[in-house]
Amino acid sequence: MSEMLPTGATIGILGGGQLGRMLSVAASRLGFKTVIFEPGGDCPASHVAHQHIQADYTDEDALRRFAGIVDVITYEFENIPTAALDVLERARPVRPDRRALKVSQDRLLEKSFLSDLGLMTAPFAAVDDPEDMAEAIAEIGIPAILKTRRFGYDGKGQARIMSPTDAEQALADMAGQPAIYEGFVEFSHEVSVIAARNQAGDVACYDPGENVHEGGILRTTTVPARLTAAQRTDAVLLAAKILNSLKYVGVMGVELFVTPKGLIVNEIAPRVHNSGHWTQAGCAIDQFEQHIRAVAGWPLGDGTRYADVVMENLIGDDMDRVPALARASGVSLHLYGKAEVKPGRKMGHANKIVSKG
Amino acid sequence: MSEMLPTGATIGILGGGQLGRMLSVAASRLGFKTVIFEPGGDCPASHVAHQHIQADYTDEDALRRFAGIVDVITYEFENIPTAALDVLERARPVRPDRRALKVSQDRLLEKSFLSDLGLMTAPFAAVDDPEDMAEAIAEIGIPAILKTRRFGYDGKGQARIMSPTDAEQALADMAGQPAIYEGFVEFSHEVSVIAARNQAGDVACYDPGENVHEGGILRTTTVPARLTAAQRTDAVLLAAKILNSLKYVGVMGVELFVTPKGLIVNEIAPRVHNSGHWTQAGCAIDQFEQHIRAVAGWPLGDGTRYADVVMENLIGDDMDRVPALARASGVSLHLYGKAEVKPGRKMGHANKIVSKG
Repeated sequence: MSEMLPTGATIGILGGGQLGRMLSVAASRLGFKTVIFEPGGDCPASHVAHQHIQADYTDEDALRRFAGIVDVITYEFENIPTAALDVLERARPVRPDRRALKVSQDRLLEKSFLSDLGLMTAPFAAVDDPEDMAEAIAEIGIPAILKTRRFGYDGKGQARIMSPTDAEQALADMAGQPAIYEGFVEFSHEVSVIAARNQAGDVACYDPGENVHEGGILRTTTVPARLTAAQRTDAVLLAAKILNSLKYVGVMGVELFVTPKGLIVNEIAPRVHNSGHWTQAGCAIDQFEQHIRAVAGWPLGDGTRYADVVMENLIGDDMDRVPALARASGVSLHLYGKAEVKPGRKMGHANKIVSKG
Repeated sequence: MSEMLPTGATIGILGGGQLGRMLSVAASRLGFKTVIFEPGGDCPASHVAHQHIQADYTDEDALRRFAGIVDVITYEFENIPTAALDVLERARPVRPDRRALKVSQDRLLEKSFLSDLGLMTAPFAAVDDPEDMAEAIAEIGIPAILKTRRFGYDGKGQARIMSPTDAEQALADMAGQPAIYEGFVEFSHEVSVIAARNQAGDVACYDPGENVHEGGILRTTTVPARLTAAQRTDAVLLAAKILNSLKYVGVMGVELFVTPKGLIVNEIAPRVHNSGHWTQAGCAIDQFEQHIRAVAGWPLGDGTRYADVVMENLIGDDMDRVPALARASGVSLHLYGKAEVKPGRKMGHANKIVSKG
């Protein structure tokens, strides 16, 4: 067993968006201070953190300064440059560690890792050139989806392939970036498991949520998800298998497709996850505090769900609905303090307690 | 109807203790920034606020600077110097306003105000000298309690009077400060109502909580409180009467003694209240956000209670129990990040969800 980081200690967070903001607030509940490392100014997390170091992820002096004033380091996004990790790891523990980052930064490694664990994924193949593409089409078939192996999020860096012509165009659009060709999966709906593991090796999973996307962006998460008791058990067990195999420390989001043949892992995110925001309204300990507890060497908290909740993202002009949502019964708002409303930009979310669980 | 303060606006908070800290966190949920005005350094609220102006409440330049960078001003404690209010009010709205501060800063005015409203209070008399004291004893009797009229909290500035000798000593200890003599009230238990009123005149009350004190400091609050349906209605109606008569804007704590003859008002606090901390675990909108909503011109939120909760203060060495509480089921911790543990010092609190409501 590791030591519990004492109240009053400081947690460093890479990334200053809404996830960093809500991690920072959760850390404050346990008496921790936070320092945000984020290149952008006036970022959401900086409004609530004790300190904001505004510097690029390639600025090694700034990274060392950051590491020097914190006790442990975590992050709100998975695309952390390896060179930054090299600097930080020498100075302070980084949790979750680079094993998790490595597999989740590269869709090909991710799929191979999951598949090696014995978990079901969409059929996939690496595509670097027209030859690979032809082989992938022959093996996996059309329709399919071509994705960059790295740095994709919210549907960016993806193209649907419905014909050989689409395939040619999609490959050209990759402009030489390594890609992965994924077969379409027939699924009835998507669920996700927010799972946590601490340094003592305890694993805790929140009740799976059911996700609805629009234009590649999460729109709503509903708990409970439509799952049989057996599916629910499967979901939790496979999430635990992933975390244990990585000796993971922190919260992970595991997205699953529900199919007649079983649960297929779509992707994993080594961080708190948009589909876990409902835990703020339905649990004694939410995903943000759970993550902080794990990285701080604390026992995991009680994540029992005690209400039925619908989480809805407020995207772009959805902000116009805030006055009405502010009046709605059972609704708690979480607005991220972003200065500018842009189409497709996540501005906040609303958790609605639908009924007691 | 007033305008809703837009997300991104800044709320100024006088006082940087745990109440200011939790107000600041609640404000962040609605996308507001906060600036703390507090003479002490490294105060709990400064860890989570966007900015901390460290200056004395008599520093008029600092007060003007503070007012200049915020959109509305509120506070976490009632003993704000009148001269500071004079400066602040000229620049920005201060909510709740000085009517509420005036009656709650002086126990004699408070009791007179409540009594004029037709509410029951303990029998009371002003005591400035031995002559007043003799009259008070003759009229109200012994046992009783002598309190300073101003600046008392957590049992400070109070003396029990069980005999005429006690009375003499208590008066001498006042060292010339104006005092109030209060008759003992026979009560079975104490409850409090956390009530809110916004600028539109809407009033909302949380379910009353039952309070247990130790050594003059709140130890636990339990919801639901032991009250008949009629008492519950009385409690809520009298709280609403107080808020409406003051045209109050914000959250107020109203402490009540439960007696066979009815509810007796012990005291009112024009701010979020320790006995309302349970709302963090049992409601969609807690008292801190309710207060921020009111002072920001927002609609009041849904404060329906959906769980049975016990709130326990962590005082001094209670911090040694944090590792055990961190493991306990249904418990959420709120630690204030105070650097030093002192006997009698409120270091944090634990909300335990006992059952679904």
